[in-house]
Amino acid sequence: MCGIFAYLNYLVPKKRQEILDLLIKGLQRLEYRGYDSAGIAVDDGNDDPADNDKKKKIRIIKKRGKVNALNDEITSIEDLDMDIEYETHCGIAHTRWATHGVPSAVNSHPQRSDTDNTFVVIHNGIITNYKDIKTFLESKKYEFESDTDTEVIAKLIKYLYDNREDDDITFRELVEDCVQQLEGAFALVFKSVHFPGELVATRRGSPLLAAISAKTKFNTDHIPITYRDSRGGKGSVKIERADSMVGFHSIGDKKEVEYFFASDASAVIEYTNRVIFLEDNDVAAVKDGALSIHRIKREAGGSHSREVHTLKMEIQQIMKGNFGTFMQKEIFEQPESVVNTMRGRLMDNEDKVVLGGLRDHLSEIRRCRRLLFIACGTSYHSAVATRQLLEELSELPVMVELASDFLDRRTPIFRDDVCFFISQSGETADTLMALRYCKERGALTVGITNTVGSSISRETDCGVHINAGPEIGVASTKAYTSQFISLVMFALMICEDRISMTERRKEIIDGLRKLPDMVREVLKMDDEIHKIAQELYQHKSILIMGRGYNYATCLEGALKIKELTYLHSEGILAGELKHGPLALVDKTMPVIMIVMKDPTYTKCQNALQQVVARQGRPILICEKGDTDSQTHASRVLEMPHMIDCLQGILTVIPLQLLAFHIAVLRGYDVDCPRNLAKSVTVE
Amino acid sequence: MCGIFAYLNYLVPKKRQEILDLLIKGLQRLEYRGYDSAGIAVDDGNDDPADNDKKKKIRIIKKRGKVNALNDEITSIEDLDMDIEYETHCGIAHTRWATHGVPSAVNSHPQRSDTDNTFVVIHNGIITNYKDIKTFLESKKYEFESDTDTEVIAKLIKYLYDNREDDDITFRELVEDCVQQLEGAFALVFKSVHFPGELVATRRGSPLLAAISAKTKFNTDHIPITYRDSRGGKGSVKIERADSMVGFHSIGDKKEVEYFFASDASAVIEYTNRVIFLEDNDVAAVKDGALSIHRIKREAGGSHSREVHTLKMEIQQIMKGNFGTFMQKEIFEQPESVVNTMRGRLMDNEDKVVLGGLRDHLSEIRRCRRLLFIACGTSYHSAVATRQLLEELSELPVMVELASDFLDRRTPIFRDDVCFFISQSGETADTLMALRYCKERGALTVGITNTVGSSISRETDCGVHINAGPEIGVASTKAYTSQFISLVMFALMICEDRISMTERRKEIIDGLRKLPDMVREVLKMDDEIHKIAQELYQHKSILIMGRGYNYATCLEGALKIKELTYLHSEGILAGELKHGPLALVDKTMPVIMIVMKDPTYTKCQNALQQVVARQGRPILICEKGDTDSQTHASRVLEMPHMIDCLQGILTVIPLQLLAFHIAVLRGYDVDCPRNLAKSVTVE
Repeated sequence: MCGIFAYLNYLVPKKRQEILDLLIKGLQRLEYRGYDSAGIAVDDGNDDPADNDKKKKIRIIKKRGKVNALNDEITSIEDLDMDIEYETHCGIAHTRWATHGVPSAVNSHPQRSDTDNTFVVIHNGIITNYKDIKTFLESKKYEFESDTDTEVIAKLIKYLYDNREDDDITFRELVEDCVQQLEGAFALVFKSVHFPGELVATRRGSPLLAAISAKTKFNTDHIPITYRDSRGGKGSVKIERADSMVGFHSIGDKKEVEYFFASDASAVIEYTNRVIFLEDNDVAAVKDGALSIHRIKREAGGSHSREVHTLKMEIQQIMKGNFGTFMQKEIFEQPESVVNTMRGRLMDNEDKVVLGGLRDHLSEIRRCRRLLFIACGTSYHSAVATRQLLEELSELPVMVELASDFLDRRTPIFRDDVCFFISQSGETADTLMALRYCKERGALTVGITNTVGSSISRETDCGVHINAGPEIGVASTKAYTSQFISLVMFALMICEDRISMTERRKEIIDGLRKLPDMVREVLKMDDEIHKIAQELYQHKSILIMGRGYNYATCLEGALKIKELTYLHSEGILAGELKHGPLALVDKTMPVIMIVMKDPTYTKCQNALQQVVARQGRPILICEKGDTDSQTHASRVLEMPHMIDCLQGILTVIPLQLLAFHIAVLRGYDVDCPRNLAKSVTVE
Repeated sequence: MCGIFAYLNYLVPKKRQEILDLLIKGLQRLEYRGYDSAGIAVDDGNDDPADNDKKKKIRIIKKRGKVNALNDEITSIEDLDMDIEYETHCGIAHTRWATHGVPSAVNSHPQRSDTDNTFVVIHNGIITNYKDIKTFLESKKYEFESDTDTEVIAKLIKYLYDNREDDDITFRELVEDCVQQLEGAFALVFKSVHFPGELVATRRGSPLLAAISAKTKFNTDHIPITYRDSRGGKGSVKIERADSMVGFHSIGDKKEVEYFFASDASAVIEYTNRVIFLEDNDVAAVKDGALSIHRIKREAGGSHSREVHTLKMEIQQIMKGNFGTFMQKEIFEQPESVVNTMRGRLMDNEDKVVLGGLRDHLSEIRRCRRLLFIACGTSYHSAVATRQLLEELSELPVMVELASDFLDRRTPIFRDDVCFFISQSGETADTLMALRYCKERGALTVGITNTVGSSISRETDCGVHINAGPEIGVASTKAYTSQFISLVMFALMICEDRISMTERRKEIIDGLRKLPDMVREVLKMDDEIHKIAQELYQHKSILIMGRGYNYATCLEGALKIKELTYLHSEGILAGELKHGPLALVDKTMPVIMIVMKDPTYTKCQNALQQVVARQGRPILICEKGDTDSQTHASRVLEMPHMIDCLQGILTVIPLQLLAFHIAVLRGYDVDCPRNLAKSVTVE
């Protein structure tokens, strides 16, 4: 959670107002990652900005609330000359999702080393050993002002600077020494009055990329890595650094260039499409306009350079279009996003599925002991939704695991296991840790993500990009349906050699082909669902019941309602009703039931009878023309007929819409539900 | 659900009042199985009861509500002479848990064939094809009065009688013909004006036992089965029947005897300890004072007789003792019940566990591909609670499945799988069906039940009786902790040959030995928990959060609160908080958090920080002296220190007590929560 953004202009003159606007805009793009408070740090004072050698003070501006509140705060500042022009300047900015300490200005980032703002830092992640560091620094008479874990980083780097043995120590070396003391997950960017015009950024566990904008062409697409352990002594650092400069630029050149650091590409794509995805323990430093990448140790098998990628993401893709909120837009994008997921994979002229990323590993997967699907939240539900089909078509044991619980249990993993990791962002901390856990134990790892270049897509042996397009709404919608389809396509591919399954496979592929039209048909119920939302939005609880292929729909629907409306909703397996949850049912409790004409139809009808016998008047999601079920319902949403294993893609949509409408009726911010952030990069 | 009770006195004179009292008492013992309405059928009229040959009318008395309401109804009847004495009489009685049709007198049992009450029947289960039968009978001009599925049985048997080809057809043959038309699950007892002094009982899927009380000694403990397909024609039935009489009695003998039919032994144990557990498709008939058991077909491998068991259950065991409710009594029994579970299994002088029922299968279990644990409700939670330990000590893949979902998914099962079935009653329909599904596929099946002679304990290859003693409260408490311990003992046994696990095994065994005292210590917090209940009982929702070994505690605690208090409570994996549920947290939402000093401690503290940062003031269940966590809590319940994997046995107790106290404060019936029944014998 939290969004990091930093901007450095080198020999590219910018007014202070322009720099501030740039920082604010970057934060706005990242706001979906956290939005309970925000802050920036820029050079202070109104003296001659052209004098680069003069040690500059740093100004921090922070504000509780969304980025707009910070912008208002900046506008109201009177003692800063906004027209000052900087030839070279670096600024850092942060939008926060609280983990330690309530949202407030003092707990916002940048955090600082002292009241002089000597060192300032922005952080995404959690420092787990912050208490120990704090105790140590307090014994050295450092005084803390915030409740955050981050503050220890700013204080620690100042301590290291003040106690340095080598006067020539570089900013980058200080950062390296500092982060070696930290445990936990982090992406960090530092700025200091001692190192004007320099930025140092690093990560471990949280995402971070560097982006470059320059008029001159790059003469290489790879930046070599410099290793600290390979040099003789600290004195030789300057020579070494010169070797590892970005190819297109060296110290002597003094060419114009702009650098960005950001949690993800959406913040930088309007300025440049040239990005470097930093890896864990990379330290990226910009000094004298040159970017270099450093690591403490050389690792066996690790790459010795970082590639400069060219992104193809369009800026329009991250705009809201005609919709008031990203989430609504994303729900209504589903007729297209499901096509994008299948494009080039579902063959036009034959009943065949080809997932390019998995083709080379298919025979290995078929020979495995079992399939594991590991994920969190909505991504977990996509695995629950497809588990039955995966079991049916693979004829293998299939386990579906919540990543955090999987790690807590230290689940036994074997060399002949195949482990799938599902995450929209590809950065979900628990899922990423589970991936590394399984990799260590020799399992084949497969990623299912929506984000090219994400940690999960880089660290897995193979994988599938779901191609749903950027998802900005914190509550996942189109990513869910695309994950669902990706897993179905995998199931189809794994059984492609089985004659006995030809008929079933053909039926499912036919179903996939009909999906876009059917999704469109279901979306037409929007008005009807809006009416249901009007009846429900003042209730305190909602129960959603179903079983079989639709159990996952209940879990996912309830999660959407929880996330967006703060109503206590729960998905209940209809088969478990009699073992407890039925006690909750009376005529006042809102109940939504999913009863589709599949092999569980009769059992679902029994559950319906049981609810009706307790005066429940459920809202029914059922198949068109199922009058038997409808006689007991207070409201009916009729779904088009679809093959059993794909129903869940359709039945989840009314619940996505319902959650959306209830949230709007209750007056809540749909895209930024309280307490939540898009990409959960801490455990 | 539903409780069945029938009583037949043969040559044992009883006044009508005595018979009615007996029927009511039987129902009261079975009330935990269902209690939304009740009814009885006895001989009607006030004529000379000694005249056994005279065709007697049948009187049905039914009432919505608990059994006491039925008793009041009987007391208020003025047109029945209560002092009439019957030398021979049969009466049937039923306490209902509604599945089809709301609770009401007309939907109660006995159901009848016509307004003359020619045939009457009591039923536990669900008839799934009742609509087809109803349509058929309606075409024959039968008129239906209730919404139940049961009514078709009474009408169908009358139809078969009215259209019989053979005037000599026996009551038992009629019942056989009738139940062959039925699909679904049932236990049934029939009475008819055409067959005075006779009862016929049968079952398929729902439990049923026959009990016998006689002064004369039995000369055999086995009743031979008579097969319908083995006889030449209907004419020979009388000769056949004579062969298959209970050994101690034959038609000519005319000796005094009393018979009982009941859903379980608690209803009969005060009269006799001699019982026969009927198997699926057995038809038991009493005629002229003789009991015989019949089956349509001889099956390969089936037993050709039924054993008369001698039960050792004490009547005191099913009384409430000093407690106001069974549930409270059962919570406070846990220091003893945990000992009973371990008695004779945890060796006194060595660190060894021996589960007699599994010993012979142990090497087969060790060689399996994976372990599956299949259950519903609370029993499912006991498997979730011990999964991590089972994985650790067995080093095998462990899957935990909800029985209904497992069946819905038609989960692949292999010959080298070992499947455990956990059920307090041993009769849970979904779990039993899952057992049969796995058996068909050749897996080794293991039962974990609390009920000797139950279907699951009979049909599994081997198993463990948890020996928790009868559990009457519908919400399971002591059975949960005993299931938990049984699974821990299994884990200890499976790794007994592993030297590297010696230390861990010893620590766990030490923990088990300390359990009774620690349970006592936790129970002392009752007053404190009562205070917390007073703060919580008017809320609408409660969230319970934890992870690792205590995740199951959250699920089970939330289920207890759901079942008893009708408050919407939900158990939330603390690791999933950030993926949605955190949106529900604000200063008004009651949150209970479990933070124990185990490997998830730091992560739980992170979750605690996140809740506190959103103004949550959680009630904390933590270890004694954990002041770090306690600073953030509104209330603290301090647990004694216990080894990680056994913590869950202690941490669940405060939640059992909390659910109990909230239910009492809200004025609800603790032992009979609305809509629920003890033993869920329908799917």
